[in-house]
Amino acid sequence: MFFHKKELQYLSKPDRPDPVFARQLQEVLGGQFGEISVAMQYLFQGWNVRGNGKYKDLLMDTGTEELAHIEMLATMIARLLEGAPVGDLEKAAQDPVIGAILGGMNVQHTIVSGLGAMPVDSMGNKWNAGYIAASGNLLADFRANLNAESQGRLQVVRLYESTNDRGVKDMLSWLIARDTMHQNQWIAAIKELEAKENVVVPSTFPKELEKQEVSYVLFNFSEGEKSATGRWASGTSMDGLGTFQYVQQPEAYGGKPNLNPAPFYIHNTLPKNLRPSSHTLPPSHM
Amino acid sequence: MFFHKKELQYLSKPDRPDPVFARQLQEVLGGQFGEISVAMQYLFQGWNVRGNGKYKDLLMDTGTEELAHIEMLATMIARLLEGAPVGDLEKAAQDPVIGAILGGMNVQHTIVSGLGAMPVDSMGNKWNAGYIAASGNLLADFRANLNAESQGRLQVVRLYESTNDRGVKDMLSWLIARDTMHQNQWIAAIKELEAKENVVVPSTFPKELEKQEVSYVLFNFSEGEKSATGRWASGTSMDGLGTFQYVQQPEAYGGKPNLNPAPFYIHNTLPKNLRPSSHTLPPSHM
Amino acid sequence: MFFHKKELQYLSKPDRPDPVFARQLQEVLGGQFGEISVAMQYLFQGWNVRGNGKYKDLLMDTGTEELAHIEMLATMIARLLEGAPVGDLEKAAQDPVIGAILGGMNVQHTIVSGLGAMPVDSMGNKWNAGYIAASGNLLADFRANLNAESQGRLQVVRLYESTNDRGVKDMLSWLIARDTMHQNQWIAAIKELEAKENVVVPSTFPKELEKQEVSYVLFNFSEGEKSATGRWASGTSMDGLGTFQYVQQPEAYGGKPNLNPAPFYIHNTLPKNLRPSSHTLPPSHM
Amino acid sequence: MFFHKKELQYLSKPDRPDPVFARQLQEVLGGQFGEISVAMQYLFQGWNVRGNGKYKDLLMDTGTEELAHIEMLATMIARLLEGAPVGDLEKAAQDPVIGAILGGMNVQHTIVSGLGAMPVDSMGNKWNAGYIAASGNLLADFRANLNAESQGRLQVVRLYESTNDRGVKDMLSWLIARDTMHQNQWIAAIKELEAKENVVVPSTFPKELEKQEVSYVLFNFSEGEKSATGRWASGTSMDGLGTFQYVQQPEAYGGKPNLNPAPFYIHNTLPKNLRPSSHTLPPSHM
Amino acid sequence: MFFHKKELQYLSKPDRPDPVFARQLQEVLGGQFGEISVAMQYLFQGWNVRGNGKYKDLLMDTGTEELAHIEMLATMIARLLEGAPVGDLEKAAQDPVIGAILGGMNVQHTIVSGLGAMPVDSMGNKWNAGYIAASGNLLADFRANLNAESQGRLQVVRLYESTNDRGVKDMLSWLIARDTMHQNQWIAAIKELEAKENVVVPSTFPKELEKQEVSYVLFNFSEGEKSATGRWASGTSMDGLGTFQYVQQPEAYGGKPNLNPAPFYIHNTLPKNLRPSSHTLPPSHM
Amino acid sequence: MFFHKKELQYLSKPDRPDPVFARQLQEVLGGQFGEISVAMQYLFQGWNVRGNGKYKDLLMDTGTEELAHIEMLATMIARLLEGAPVGDLEKAAQDPVIGAILGGMNVQHTIVSGLGAMPVDSMGNKWNAGYIAASGNLLADFRANLNAESQGRLQVVRLYESTNDRGVKDMLSWLIARDTMHQNQWIAAIKELEAKENVVVPSTFPKELEKQEVSYVLFNFSEGEKSATGRWASGTSMDGLGTFQYVQQPEAYGGKPNLNPAPFYIHNTLPKNLRPSSHTLPPSHM
Repeated sequence: MFFHKKELQYLSKPDRPDPVFARQLQEVLGGQFGEISVAMQYLFQGWNVRGNGKYKDLLMDTGTEELAHIEMLATMIARLLEGAPVGDLEKAAQDPVIGAILGGMNVQHTIVSGLGAMPVDSMGNKWNAGYIAASGNLLADFRANLNAESQGRLQVVRLYESTNDRGVKDMLSWLIARDTMHQNQWIAAIKELEAKENVVVPSTFPKELEKQEVSYVLFNFSEGEKSATGRWASGTSMDGLGTFQYVQQPEAYGGKPNLNPAPFYIHNTLPKNLRPSSHTLPPSHM
Repeated sequence: MFFHKKELQYLSKPDRPDPVFARQLQEVLGGQFGEISVAMQYLFQGWNVRGNGKYKDLLMDTGTEELAHIEMLATMIARLLEGAPVGDLEKAAQDPVIGAILGGMNVQHTIVSGLGAMPVDSMGNKWNAGYIAASGNLLADFRANLNAESQGRLQVVRLYESTNDRGVKDMLSWLIARDTMHQNQWIAAIKELEAKENVVVPSTFPKELEKQEVSYVLFNFSEGEKSATGRWASGTSMDGLGTFQYVQQPEAYGGKPNLNPAPFYIHNTLPKNLRPSSHTLPPSHM
Repeated sequence: MFFHKKELQYLSKPDRPDPVFARQLQEVLGGQFGEISVAMQYLFQGWNVRGNGKYKDLLMDTGTEELAHIEMLATMIARLLEGAPVGDLEKAAQDPVIGAILGGMNVQHTIVSGLGAMPVDSMGNKWNAGYIAASGNLLADFRANLNAESQGRLQVVRLYESTNDRGVKDMLSWLIARDTMHQNQWIAAIKELEAKENVVVPSTFPKELEKQEVSYVLFNFSEGEKSATGRWASGTSMDGLGTFQYVQQPEAYGGKPNLNPAPFYIHNTLPKNLRPSSHTLPPSHM
Repeated sequence: MFFHKKELQYLSKPDRPDPVFARQLQEVLGGQFGEISVAMQYLFQGWNVRGNGKYKDLLMDTGTEELAHIEMLATMIARLLEGAPVGDLEKAAQDPVIGAILGGMNVQHTIVSGLGAMPVDSMGNKWNAGYIAASGNLLADFRANLNAESQGRLQVVRLYESTNDRGVKDMLSWLIARDTMHQNQWIAAIKELEAKENVVVPSTFPKELEKQEVSYVLFNFSEGEKSATGRWASGTSMDGLGTFQYVQQPEAYGGKPNLNPAPFYIHNTLPKNLRPSSHTLPPSHM
Repeated sequence: MFFHKKELQYLSKPDRPDPVFARQLQEVLGGQFGEISVAMQYLFQGWNVRGNGKYKDLLMDTGTEELAHIEMLATMIARLLEGAPVGDLEKAAQDPVIGAILGGMNVQHTIVSGLGAMPVDSMGNKWNAGYIAASGNLLADFRANLNAESQGRLQVVRLYESTNDRGVKDMLSWLIARDTMHQNQWIAAIKELEAKENVVVPSTFPKELEKQEVSYVLFNFSEGEKSATGRWASGTSMDGLGTFQYVQQPEAYGGKPNLNPAPFYIHNTLPKNLRPSSHTLPPSHM
Repeated sequence: MFFHKKELQYLSKPDRPDPVFARQLQEVLGGQFGEISVAMQYLFQGWNVRGNGKYKDLLMDTGTEELAHIEMLATMIARLLEGAPVGDLEKAAQDPVIGAILGGMNVQHTIVSGLGAMPVDSMGNKWNAGYIAASGNLLADFRANLNAESQGRLQVVRLYESTNDRGVKDMLSWLIARDTMHQNQWIAAIKELEAKENVVVPSTFPKELEKQEVSYVLFNFSEGEKSATGRWASGTSMDGLGTFQYVQQPEAYGGKPNLNPAPFYIHNTLPKNLRPSSHTLPPSHM
């Protein structure tokens, strides 16, 4: 169950409106690695935890905080939109600032949301649940989380570089710091699980059931052998259970596939010299 | 530029058709963490690498291999579909196997693809590019890759548990082994970059520009304090640059937001006692 | 800012696992009118309110409650999934219950989420933000809310009819009651705004700027005149500002459109007798 | 069955081309609440009506009219696109009008549709059927319709404010008037059904089966009590069957959920001290 | 402008309900090549025609007929759904017919649409406008139309093979015949345009501006030379303007790409030995 | 199995950066008819071919080449992005070129991909598998391919007209030439199959099972009879098996549909005078 406090977690006030930046800021609200994504990802992971109370608590703590970040960004975007112009192109174009705004803003911010934030990214793509992961395997999922926080912090930093508004920069410096923490915490949790389970997910699948002769092999499928010089091409594998090998000329072990023709009632193109005879006809043809 | 060899990388032949399993197997072909996703993710990351030849080569090697895995799965699915029935429900239901097949298969495998594999997941969702990440920051992206290989191997393992077909299990054991390698290789590459850059992405953002007082703080937003017992709540932070802290009662630093009313021409609901007067009317009203 | 309490708002425990019903229940969690939709819709409306504190508070109260409903449903689904089988079709089909389960469940519940709830609907479509509305005009938005609660309660009732599990029915009776309240509250808020603004949204657009001769006319575009007998075809209009009329044979006022040919550099099919001459060629052709 | 008349329902001719406005106008053609949405929504509702001829006729009348509105908008957009420039950025930027056009238009209007209208919104999102509702319950669906006409008229009005083109304004004034009618007609139909069935959808679910103690309760989940002052917090409920109550400190009735561990063959992270033993292994491991 | 006649274009009545077939039939209503797709594709092409009255009329004739086909299918699906069961799995599974139905039907047909047709395909994917094409070039678009009618008739034929219901088969035989006509008509229109313009779209692009040395070359990118034996590998090209050639070992003409490093403020991984110096820092760092 | 060569198939180097054109060029990389679409379409068709080695080889040759085209475009886009600015709007607007760039570029090219190409179209829509077709019927699929190459070449030509950059034009002239070949080759393959099978897909469905009286009829559903003057309205049909007819006033053969009411437990609006009685109540109501 959740409770809401009207106060924001941190200040969210720009020095001045900037509808073009409002559109850009949508990326970290409603984009692939925005705050909606991390909130939903952590909460679903948390709700689906079976046992493992410490991790569940961490997921719920962090997922709940991300709801507050959605709120901060929604507020900031609504404020950045305050000066959003509408109006006639010819007139607009006389003022290059207005022309640039009309060109660069998300026009749904006026037509659809009435100067409000939207659950979309910076190109107007609607947020969708294909962005998130919650598998029930915590090591896999914490890696999803570390990835999300890495991509997310990178995007916030790029947005920080794109504005001179001190109010916006102040809020972004909060989000950047929180992403520093979140990367740190998922790394800590990952280390703990890796120490218990070793590094390959899932750790519970019996080693002898995988095709072990290719478990530590780098196949050189792209001409040029620079990849042979990497750590991943020789030495002990990272899980400590094998030795990396580099195969310069990968072979094909599977032979040429030859599929059987489809039954007549599928009406595919039949191979040459194969025409339907009455005994293959379905009942409807008789 | 690419070249294709007709032979498959590994055997891809089931003992017998099984249209219901064909549908399930689509998950690791066209699902969020299926082979299309990793192929596209590695290739786009590779094409976008600026300098860094060793990593580019590794990405192109692996992305190109994943194309071969799409091919193996497509072939296997086409073969599993060979016995796909069509037909009348009442008749079908007299044979519980056929009833279960009609219920459990992807009906587009007969109606749409004519017994061929499709770029969709096990529920029929079409593959889309919102599943992949390629940011230009290699540490972020290798974490995306490690996540994809972790989720992917987990799914292949679950599919391995769901069938008794030895031909299918044989092919899956190949994919599981390759995912073992791919997890190992991304871990190796991540370690290398973390050693150079430290662990927080992006490492190039000046520390003093983030709100450092909250860079290592765990806020207790979910009642209950189990998360306080984790490694992430005390001790040196994973990046070695701070000390984890646990805040039991997080405060709100941002105040209650109060948004200004929208201009009249947006036609939002206006706050009480605020009614339009003629000077706020846009030209079109005069 | 939000706080989470580990206790659920209401009991969420089935009598027994039922993976097929788990899939159906996803509809009201992650479907078009499920709990994710109403939570996101109310919260975005609330964050975007400009002034109007009473309505903002109501939106935040209700949006925050809906987060608790997502949680209840996620928990229930995780529990319904506990018995989810994996396994071989032939064996499965020997037991008609298992055959029906494999056919009728969401197979991603095993392969992808590891027996956890997902942000998808009952057919596996991922939740997306195209389901929600937040326009800044509260009368419009409260109508969106009333619609969502009407469609949502209808779906929960249909699910109630589809199970005999007393634990599930108990939880659904809670959700049905809450939807009763939410329909009532949005009706109350709508009545209040309609009393102030009249019923047509937006009320702030000057009457004289619309084509008033067709503001209260029902055009008979579908042969047959049953619709002429309705309240909407005669008498005073619902806004009290006009009189409903019924037009039996609607006329076309717009003439036949005749579009100008596209410039040559668009490479559309040109109308007969219109072939490019040199003076229409773009620079690149010279 | 349908018949088409080449004449437009109303004039659809701009004073001059304006590719930037063409893109904005797409919102009410192919957006969430655009004409494609209402046409499809009313037609599907109409086709699915079981009995209830008067309502079916009204739905088919209105759905068919909306097809004419799609046509008017498509024509208008094609005409607004007539001057769409292509060309080199540096040259373009010398003329601020052209620079603003290239920035602000939907570039697919030249590259993809060859100066034609598209079934997309103002940000280029493709129309999808997740925008519409047709539930078989007419009171629910008429509320969906009233919502769609409210959001739609609001958007058309905002577009009216954004242009000085008299031809465009003339056409929009037609659409605004028709939306006035459509809001009026759905209100009339809603009133009629509410009078018969009372206001809560579906009205056919037995009152005693819902958890009646919370059917009229407003829970204060967002700190601050402004919502307590609304009509929805006290007095007789809108359906006349209860009394609104306000609960200042909502309790949790559901306890802490505790999910059972997943079976071993799901390969989730297992809770501490729970390690697989041979008797839980699936057959494939033996 | 459109008019609707309540009578269906052709009979649409099954012998008996069959909810599983109802779900399958959705493919040709709301799938990629279903009736919604062709209706929208032809209407948008028609509305966007600039001049060329004969083709515009043909498009509007056919697009309007497809609306009638949507209607026939919607009606048929609603009738097939009449016996759709709800209910408890265990009870259901005692009757294998009901078990198969619950497994094989679209569960949204009960929960969401209340036994009505939906704008979705047979796997429940919502129809979206990414399925259609309207480019302004009629030869390109008529090829899109011929493709759509070919894929569509194939799917209807496969559905015909999948049922024994005479009422359904009767309606499908109508749709199959209409698709015969539609394939014939688009072929006729294509032939006419090809005779005028030659076969390569767009025909208006100056031959000398394309890299003519590879305009008629088949590159052997897939090992094995069976494709060398086809008509496309030797002889005069189909446009009569060149001679087909077969290149057994395709060369790479483009060199190895080497991308410049990104500016510092993008925070990508920098190539080795390239570290930021102060003069590349953006203003925000100073 | 695939191999990658680092060299590009053809040169891919612009004269100078142009982030606005980079965004436009995305259309033919990740749009509906871009290179990802044709690569995936041909490869899936090829993998699903059953027998028919010559066609399979052609599909694999061409699909593999398209991978090289994705690569060329990705490289070109990365290079066009090199000068992408970030920064403050007010400063930007002082320089109209920068203003136009900020307005006209895909902002995700900086925020998300770090100056790399993305699998999206020119409006930022993510590529999805709903764009492609692979039906198992080769005549149908080669028509899909001819359509894709026609739409694709048209788009590349339009992009060629939109730039003065000689490096870009040089690369586009390569792609245009390859599309010339690909249109030619699919036409050749289509002719061959049509000669064997006649022109209507699928050719294997027995003529006598379709409603032959309407197999060659053009119905005049759009007022005006220009379409009667086309080749499709009279003379022998294109398949040589019938005679085209034109029907000026199409009749309705299907009668008015009248759907039965839904069972009570669906909670639809019931027709007048039809109220539930106890014997229709489901068990849960008793």
